[in-house]
Amino acid sequence: MVKTAILGYGTVGSGVYEVLKKNKDVISGKLGEEIQVKYVLDLREFEGDPVQDVLVHDMNLILDDPEVQIVCETMGGEHPAYDFTKSALERGKSVCTSNKELVEKHGPELIKIAEKHQCSYLFEASVGGGIPIIRPLRTSLAQEEILSITGILNGTTNYILTKMETEGLAFDTVLARAQEKGYAEKNPDADILGYDACRKISILTSLAYGKKVDFQDITTEGITAITDIDFAYAKKMGATIKLFAKSVKKNGKYYAIVAPFMVKPENPLYAVKGVFNAILVNANMGGETMYYGKGAGKLATASAVVADVLDCARHIGKHLDIKWEDERLEISPIDGAVRKFFVRVSLTDEEQIKKVFGEVEMFTGVAKGECGFVTEEMTEAAYRERAAKFDNVLSMIRVD
Amino acid sequence: MVKTAILGYGTVGSGVYEVLKKNKDVISGKLGEEIQVKYVLDLREFEGDPVQDVLVHDMNLILDDPEVQIVCETMGGEHPAYDFTKSALERGKSVCTSNKELVEKHGPELIKIAEKHQCSYLFEASVGGGIPIIRPLRTSLAQEEILSITGILNGTTNYILTKMETEGLAFDTVLARAQEKGYAEKNPDADILGYDACRKISILTSLAYGKKVDFQDITTEGITAITDIDFAYAKKMGATIKLFAKSVKKNGKYYAIVAPFMVKPENPLYAVKGVFNAILVNANMGGETMYYGKGAGKLATASAVVADVLDCARHIGKHLDIKWEDERLEISPIDGAVRKFFVRVSLTDEEQIKKVFGEVEMFTGVAKGECGFVTEEMTEAAYRERAAKFDNVLSMIRVD
Repeated sequence: MVKTAILGYGTVGSGVYEVLKKNKDVISGKLGEEIQVKYVLDLREFEGDPVQDVLVHDMNLILDDPEVQIVCETMGGEHPAYDFTKSALERGKSVCTSNKELVEKHGPELIKIAEKHQCSYLFEASVGGGIPIIRPLRTSLAQEEILSITGILNGTTNYILTKMETEGLAFDTVLARAQEKGYAEKNPDADILGYDACRKISILTSLAYGKKVDFQDITTEGITAITDIDFAYAKKMGATIKLFAKSVKKNGKYYAIVAPFMVKPENPLYAVKGVFNAILVNANMGGETMYYGKGAGKLATASAVVADVLDCARHIGKHLDIKWEDERLEISPIDGAVRKFFVRVSLTDEEQIKKVFGEVEMFTGVAKGECGFVTEEMTEAAYRERAAKFDNVLSMIRVD
Repeated sequence: MVKTAILGYGTVGSGVYEVLKKNKDVISGKLGEEIQVKYVLDLREFEGDPVQDVLVHDMNLILDDPEVQIVCETMGGEHPAYDFTKSALERGKSVCTSNKELVEKHGPELIKIAEKHQCSYLFEASVGGGIPIIRPLRTSLAQEEILSITGILNGTTNYILTKMETEGLAFDTVLARAQEKGYAEKNPDADILGYDACRKISILTSLAYGKKVDFQDITTEGITAITDIDFAYAKKMGATIKLFAKSVKKNGKYYAIVAPFMVKPENPLYAVKGVFNAILVNANMGGETMYYGKGAGKLATASAVVADVLDCARHIGKHLDIKWEDERLEISPIDGAVRKFFVRVSLTDEEQIKKVFGEVEMFTGVAKGECGFVTEEMTEAAYRERAAKFDNVLSMIRVD
């Protein structure tokens, strides 16, 4: 029997407890032995909840119990999660977490500590919720040179964009409804400004190249400027608008961005609707693979934590190696990234546009007194330089 | 340094050699040590090819060399692949293969032998080519009760159906063109009659439930009866037609089928076009996850073999456990499976149809002297019983 402790009995922590309980037989069958929750750590009491029987309020009980070999850190936040994780690893207890903030900030250090103490620090649930992506990157794609990663990594924004598209509504209206339904937080900034997606692509890019990406190096734009008129243009172009979190390796340089993109149906991410997430990886040998599923939610996220618990249980006394050095991966200025741009300007003189942008694909008749066009491929710097010649750019959306 | 041998220098085998060579640095970086191809076994000579330096014609050289710890079996077919695999495993050499025929037929036995000799038998490349699906099933979804697996597992048929849809062409026309382009074999039966997809869903279902599915227990229909008129109906329904390989666990019973299905855009498999494959897994805790990529092709398949090689290299002297007992998983007669059916009949009397089928959704005006309809949910047996009352059923396609 393998014994585990859950730190934090909130949404994800109680989900982990539930998955381990409900799927006890499946898990024992696959693993060949039982996984038992010996402790749940939380400051609160849960009278009437069966968890009360294993509830403790003192982390030292868990740290001092040699029977506990795996710890699930589902508290979130940096402190005390960091200290608890470090202490557990130093005692040779593997830690499985859903805490993307901690992973993004201290991943390399915690992996090193785990290595030193022959245990593991696993964090499948920290990116993409219930979608297996961290483990496939580490195992199924270890033989590949990763050329690009493009993710729809935030369910709230994908839900909002999907609703704007299908119901023709304005951003504010959809956000308000999403908040009512609990699909968006009361303070939705981390989602709608792209920060959440940014931390996640930072983790995935770090794992792809084995070095540390500083999320502050990633150009990050949210979806707050996207309007129903943008979607009307998208429809005319046969496209849709998605918040992409993207990193690319090109000519030995690395680029990373979080921003809305115009996406055509040929891209498998086009069909990812609502709260679902997906990650498209392009690799030099196997080509494109995509991983799709629920990017959030109690049981999906908890299930990913439990997958890590099983992996640790299969490797007791062994370190599951994750290449992620503390050395910084240099992200090149986004200026050098090459792509097409969709631009809306409050004028309709095609000649004037072509004089500045050269060959463009025009879209007219969508809204009065303006037009939209798609440029040829150029660098971000070249786009900005040309756009500066107009004082009437209404919006710009990158084209994938 | 880890030393490996490749058995068979055909399409996949030469791909494995290429991936190991081209991505040598990436692989060494991730693994922490180099993987060297010490031997390539083939009956032929390859004058002028650098492989000639490591080419051997006698399997015993490989078996007798204790330095070779991992063998890639990329010969295909049952013999001598079976004997070579068995001998290698008995000497404690792990075997990684793309050979779906061998895996389907002898998987449980070869896994047992590997377990006994503390090595591994891995076969990621045998299903879904370059798509990670076997390893995610074994690791990322080990904590899940699998409720259903639905796969587009054959690139040739998906290419044909996609072309029929987008170009409005007849089956025979598209098949002939696919054969010209090399997307379909000269003898295409294994693909177009669904046998290839059947073997693959048989392997996936076996792994999901840990017992052996006999592929002959799986109801298998190909795509040869699908016409351009069927696609015209699909369009009217806002659907498309896909060859699904599907297994379902419901009320303690297991159902499995390979057949064309009407698929709506809400299903993430709807967007899988051309030669791409994808597998949608529904699990009781994490819900739906989908895995998408190239289902065939030299480098994609080879890349999956090399992923297995790295996994073995990380676990030298240890058996990577795959639950797959030789005990037979009982597949229930398809009669009991419940779904909707799309039916075309050469009559247009709606009353007559409703008298037999009850409430239906009618589609008229697609072709002269006939109509199509979608039934309510019923068992396959109930459908057949009702359809027998008409002597003018033109076609039936299951609805997902």
